[in-house]
Amino acid sequence: MTVRVGVIGVGMIGQDHIRRLTHVLSGSQVVAVTDVDPTRAQEVADGLQGARVHATGQELIRDDDVDAVLVASWGATHEEYVLAAIEAGKPVFCEKPLATTEEACQRILDAEVASGRRLVMVGFMRRYDASYQGVKSAVDDGAIGTPLLMHCAHRNPSVPPYGFTTEMMITDSAIHEIDLVRWMFGEEVVAATVLKPRRSSKGSDDLHDPLIVLLEMGSGVLVDVELSLNIGYGYDIRGEVVGESGTASLAETAAAMVKSDGRFSGGVPADWRERFIRAYDVELQDWIDAVATGGFTGPSAWDGYAAAVVSDACLEALRTGTRTVVSQRERPDFYTKS
Amino acid sequence: MTVRVGVIGVGMIGQDHIRRLTHVLSGSQVVAVTDVDPTRAQEVADGLQGARVHATGQELIRDDDVDAVLVASWGATHEEYVLAAIEAGKPVFCEKPLATTEEACQRILDAEVASGRRLVMVGFMRRYDASYQGVKSAVDDGAIGTPLLMHCAHRNPSVPPYGFTTEMMITDSAIHEIDLVRWMFGEEVVAATVLKPRRSSKGSDDLHDPLIVLLEMGSGVLVDVELSLNIGYGYDIRGEVVGESGTASLAETAAAMVKSDGRFSGGVPADWRERFIRAYDVELQDWIDAVATGGFTGPSAWDGYAAAVVSDACLEALRTGTRTVVSQRERPDFYTKS
Amino acid sequence: MTVRVGVIGVGMIGQDHIRRLTHVLSGSQVVAVTDVDPTRAQEVADGLQGARVHATGQELIRDDDVDAVLVASWGATHEEYVLAAIEAGKPVFCEKPLATTEEACQRILDAEVASGRRLVMVGFMRRYDASYQGVKSAVDDGAIGTPLLMHCAHRNPSVPPYGFTTEMMITDSAIHEIDLVRWMFGEEVVAATVLKPRRSSKGSDDLHDPLIVLLEMGSGVLVDVELSLNIGYGYDIRGEVVGESGTASLAETAAAMVKSDGRFSGGVPADWRERFIRAYDVELQDWIDAVATGGFTGPSAWDGYAAAVVSDACLEALRTGTRTVVSQRERPDFYTKS
Amino acid sequence: MTVRVGVIGVGMIGQDHIRRLTHVLSGSQVVAVTDVDPTRAQEVADGLQGARVHATGQELIRDDDVDAVLVASWGATHEEYVLAAIEAGKPVFCEKPLATTEEACQRILDAEVASGRRLVMVGFMRRYDASYQGVKSAVDDGAIGTPLLMHCAHRNPSVPPYGFTTEMMITDSAIHEIDLVRWMFGEEVVAATVLKPRRSSKGSDDLHDPLIVLLEMGSGVLVDVELSLNIGYGYDIRGEVVGESGTASLAETAAAMVKSDGRFSGGVPADWRERFIRAYDVELQDWIDAVATGGFTGPSAWDGYAAAVVSDACLEALRTGTRTVVSQRERPDFYTKS
Ligand SMILES: [Mg+2]
Ligand SMILES: [Mg+2]
Ligand SMILES: [Mg+2]
Ligand SMILES: [Mg+2]
Repeated sequence: MTVRVGVIGVGMIGQDHIRRLTHVLSGSQVVAVTDVDPTRAQEVADGLQGARVHATGQELIRDDDVDAVLVASWGATHEEYVLAAIEAGKPVFCEKPLATTEEACQRILDAEVASGRRLVMVGFMRRYDASYQGVKSAVDDGAIGTPLLMHCAHRNPSVPPYGFTTEMMITDSAIHEIDLVRWMFGEEVVAATVLKPRRSSKGSDDLHDPLIVLLEMGSGVLVDVELSLNIGYGYDIRGEVVGESGTASLAETAAAMVKSDGRFSGGVPADWRERFIRAYDVELQDWIDAVATGGFTGPSAWDGYAAAVVSDACLEALRTGTRTVVSQRERPDFYTKS
Repeated sequence: MTVRVGVIGVGMIGQDHIRRLTHVLSGSQVVAVTDVDPTRAQEVADGLQGARVHATGQELIRDDDVDAVLVASWGATHEEYVLAAIEAGKPVFCEKPLATTEEACQRILDAEVASGRRLVMVGFMRRYDASYQGVKSAVDDGAIGTPLLMHCAHRNPSVPPYGFTTEMMITDSAIHEIDLVRWMFGEEVVAATVLKPRRSSKGSDDLHDPLIVLLEMGSGVLVDVELSLNIGYGYDIRGEVVGESGTASLAETAAAMVKSDGRFSGGVPADWRERFIRAYDVELQDWIDAVATGGFTGPSAWDGYAAAVVSDACLEALRTGTRTVVSQRERPDFYTKS
Repeated sequence: MTVRVGVIGVGMIGQDHIRRLTHVLSGSQVVAVTDVDPTRAQEVADGLQGARVHATGQELIRDDDVDAVLVASWGATHEEYVLAAIEAGKPVFCEKPLATTEEACQRILDAEVASGRRLVMVGFMRRYDASYQGVKSAVDDGAIGTPLLMHCAHRNPSVPPYGFTTEMMITDSAIHEIDLVRWMFGEEVVAATVLKPRRSSKGSDDLHDPLIVLLEMGSGVLVDVELSLNIGYGYDIRGEVVGESGTASLAETAAAMVKSDGRFSGGVPADWRERFIRAYDVELQDWIDAVATGGFTGPSAWDGYAAAVVSDACLEALRTGTRTVVSQRERPDFYTKS
Repeated sequence: MTVRVGVIGVGMIGQDHIRRLTHVLSGSQVVAVTDVDPTRAQEVADGLQGARVHATGQELIRDDDVDAVLVASWGATHEEYVLAAIEAGKPVFCEKPLATTEEACQRILDAEVASGRRLVMVGFMRRYDASYQGVKSAVDDGAIGTPLLMHCAHRNPSVPPYGFTTEMMITDSAIHEIDLVRWMFGEEVVAATVLKPRRSSKGSDDLHDPLIVLLEMGSGVLVDVELSLNIGYGYDIRGEVVGESGTASLAETAAAMVKSDGRFSGGVPADWRERFIRAYDVELQDWIDAVATGGFTGPSAWDGYAAAVVSDACLEALRTGTRTVVSQRERPDFYTKS
């Protein structure tokens, strides 16, 4: 069965997912698109065989030829499209964030629980990265003993000089680690602290870059996340879990090693696309495969909600300079994977 | 356009390619299969939507619903299927070897040249491996200067205790390096020598494992290939090109590093499947994409012929213990990619 | 000129320094020893050519045949011996700590300043480690831009099950990183925080292991130090300085890499002796060389004082669970190396 | 007991050994020097406390104040000084080569055997390198199974444009690997072949650089040695032993890793001095310690002889282009370490 996908939002990320569904992955077809910019929607549709353009996301979701919905529009619009997909009983892949407020996330949780079916997957692609999976395997296999700590670094060569705020270092960057550690340790984040080291002169004047975010897990596992968003040398994602008897860390990802000019060296990815291109592929294939068989997979609406709540706590911690407890509703049994 | 593929030979490798075409890659559908074992062919077809079974490869090739042919049958049958595909004017992906004798390869060259169209791709998947491509990029970019040497190691944890002969260390194993160095350096192998180091006690009594194969390229670049086929610890493929001012080598492929029990360590792939799974995917997608657009790509029939001829020289060198010159026909202009 | 050294305290560390002075390094001779245990002192002297035993450290310091004094006795006795050496006008190498209270350190500073001569070197041997020096060179050469952060890990396979307290994780272990970051960045630590992650079950019941110590440097550089003192797998010292445009970190120290049983691996040192044996050698040779030429070198009494003060702040932070500001007297010009 | 050393030949290497004996190592004193250039000898002696200058090596050897002799003069003079030291019954450390002809080496063997005392140590310092020792430990511990192969690379950034001949690639460079593999595997080299890959344009016109030297050990272990003497990027010594179940290789030696400009990287040594400085220290301390206790240690005259004979076979192989069998006299029991 070919899954017929409708894509809401065909900006850079939406187009990238369309390319993936059309030219890379198996088992799906993009049959409908829509965008806040109708011209762009039409241009994208013109490049696809038999894809129609809808005036609105709501219309696209109602389209009987659309089996499943991919939401890649502006974050503030995610809630309404996800809710509409749930109402229509259609599986929906929603790029992070699930929604931009805790309340919006809660409305989605309530709607999905009420629908009685798991329909929502959130695009936290790092869970699909082979390196993170290798670390998680080592942790789960007991190779390092009970986990106690995790050190993370999230380094971008640069972020836009205008418009990228210190808050976005949490909501756009650290959000990945927030989801990741919940998945890695199978438990919730219960408190957050944000530390402000010496500022880099490389970013904009408003930006306090780098930051250190401390996340405390329910079990006491303590995670420190370095966010360095203008570090120039590359896009470098590091992670090391420290257990009672060993550690597991992400390996370097260079394909080849070169010896020249007095050094041996390997490449660091230039950007997130290069680093996580495979994770995006695997993530979306996983979704398509689940949809095709009527199942569900991947990060759930609950994961989207939890990430939002922890992100809010981090923002509060950033504002106040103090340790902030995460207050989170109880997890519905509905979201306990069986 | 969806490329409708007919698969000849649905043993382990054929089934793996079918899985890939059906569940991993984009733009193709397996519409027909055939096998020396009709029951197996039927079983495989039963698992596919709308695939028919043909009694013979020839019949499958003639099927109007088959756009392109994938040959994964026993090596000795490759020639007839490739020739039939050429005659039918259909693109054909042929697993290595192209054919089992130099003469058979020549007949294929002649037929393809006569047909006036490039239709044949040979399954030398290492060219599609990211690590090898990283090394080749470094070489081509001049990062290490003019290449002078290459060191290769081809290590299998084990080969079957019965039936795997010393000759097969050339024809089944070294064949990959033979193609690889032709691609890496863009030139032909002109002579070969085979050295017999101390024998491993791990293999069968008939097997002289390990071997060192020396390949001399047209420019004088000298390649040494260690073949260790019962080395136990893993499937490990190494390669380092030495240039006038530096070297480029395959990086280790471990996804995660673990510290435990007094050591830091990373995994070595368990087998060729694990090591080259992505290369196989990229290779076959490349073929599908080329077929869909009416073009051609990848290792050609000429590459299949050249590998066969060098492999024959290695066998002669193995038999005689001396350096053996490769005698090869002139390369038709037809095979100079434009 | 051969430097005639008197050694106060010939326990494990004192004996190791005697071995070093006698059998490894150049330019010195151990001419006198003393110990709280006279029998042990005599035994050690018996193994040395022409070394006499003194009843007390004070007597040893007064011995005219003693050019320079090495203090390796119990920490609480350091002050009196260092003060006596200053009074005698003799160079003194004092194992860390310089003294066990801030006040004692201050008395040493005052005495040395009053003496008008730099006589005291404190045994912070990490400054002499080739890996740390490599990192510092990269930082100082501008290879990574202005430093902003440093991540450290200090991992011991185990500490004694009895008698090793959580406070000693600061005073015995973190003390090395405290000195190290002052040296690395050429500035003082101004505040400290101690975090308590999930407890390891491997240590004693009283021990809160691991800890995270946060050190804030005068410039705002933020240092996080993981202390894991029962991690089993080895003695592993990690450090990465993060700058505005890159990072510099300690390389792994394995001499050989092994591939076996599905993994490539290298050894982690078994203990601090293995890890820092060369640093101890280089440190003490540096001292001998300086003494021989009438100069001074290495970590000064000021460094010993500063480490003590920061260590006290860490203890306070451990007790209170809050960020603690380091209050430190002004640095005398006397200690500005010229 | 302080070993009083007389040094014959105070050029670059001799002076370096004097620095080592005087300022780095323990237990020795340089009491006499001599050199073909008396002015240079005097200058060096002036920098040493109480060292006298002798007109000739023979005179120095006879000096009663000289306990042991270090020969660092021009290779062609080694024989006479080593023979004289044997005659005088004094331990002698002779820089490689032991002598420049097989016959000369034989005369030394005969003289030493006749003397009844092991007096000669040859300066093959690689045996004292921690990385090589790590590899040998892995081999000896059975970590990789019975050894079958070894891959070596010996890369210099450059050699002098004038005066350095292709033959010297054997006698000055490969000589180190020749000794090394004898030590690594505890057996003799029985045959040699030299291969000429594509020439580097970086060296002088007379030089055939790089070369591949193949060494066959008595057990059948096959060693390939890449000699690349103008490779520019650094002084890089590689080695990997391949066993029946694994491999052991020299680790990279970088002290620190840097991330900058899109790459992670570590330094390659600039020259042999940087790479092997510790090995030289350990080697010479080992000699001093053995002399002080009346024992012997390290590479023997037999090792010097065997290296010379294998080196001769390599030169023959280079000349003839064919595999050359090493013909070697029987090893006297005298040289079987007990
Ligand atoms: Mg995502
Ligand atoms: Mg293949
Ligand atoms: Mg110390
Ligand atoms: Mg030497």
